[in-house]
Amino acid sequence: MNTVNVKSKFELFNDHWSPKIVGELNGQYVKLTKLKGEFIWHQHDHEDELFLVVKGTLRIMLEDRELVLQEGDLTIVPRGVRHKPIADEEAHVILFEPKSTLTTGAIQNEQTTAGEWI
Amino acid sequence: MNTVNVKSKFELFNDHWSPKIVGELNGQYVKLTKLKGEFIWHQHDHEDELFLVVKGTLRIMLEDRELVLQEGDLTIVPRGVRHKPIADEEAHVILFEPKSTLTTGAIQNEQTTAGEWI
Repeated sequence: MNTVNVKSKFELFNDHWSPKIVGELNGQYVKLTKLKGEFIWHQHDHEDELFLVVKGTLRIMLEDRELVLQEGDLTIVPRGVRHKPIADEEAHVILFEPKSTLTTGAIQNEQTTAGEWI
Repeated sequence: MNTVNVKSKFELFNDHWSPKIVGELNGQYVKLTKLKGEFIWHQHDHEDELFLVVKGTLRIMLEDRELVLQEGDLTIVPRGVRHKPIADEEAHVILFEPKSTLTTGAIQNEQTTAGEWI
């Protein structure tokens, strides 16, 4: 049991679309991720996913519209909802999601990861 | 499904120790709370509780030590761990915890609440 400084943790890595785990509670992980460019369309069949932007701008394309999150904005993508995250410039994002969550949801490719602890 | 601006939500209320719910996912709530002064010693028997400080300083007294969280710090108090939150000046905190969580844990008093949606 300790305190985690979010900003300091973000300084420990530079790769994109590769979440780092910083906390665990109630079967959920708290993850930090740096995003830049376009991710793939995907969905999580069994997990709702929270995005909280702490730096930059995150666009989340949905099938019928697009969400734009600035610093200090959060949104929850419910399970089963197809989405495509895009960050035109690097964005720093906190994720809250079940431990079972994979980055690419129901799709398996070279970007698939459950994250690693830092 | 929408975006939530955390800072704007904090402007909607001024009471202390009375969490406001701004999101729900995977059986958990995302809550915002303003803290000032001392809360009671309590524990949550079945819920781990995350505190993320977005403004001010939060002290969390434990039985054997004290955690001090500044802006941008988070900590997770595991279920069963007695704790006493203190904010010498007003602090703004994001909570992430199971929907069943009551502010005072296993204790019932006039400060007991599960929070309300804003």
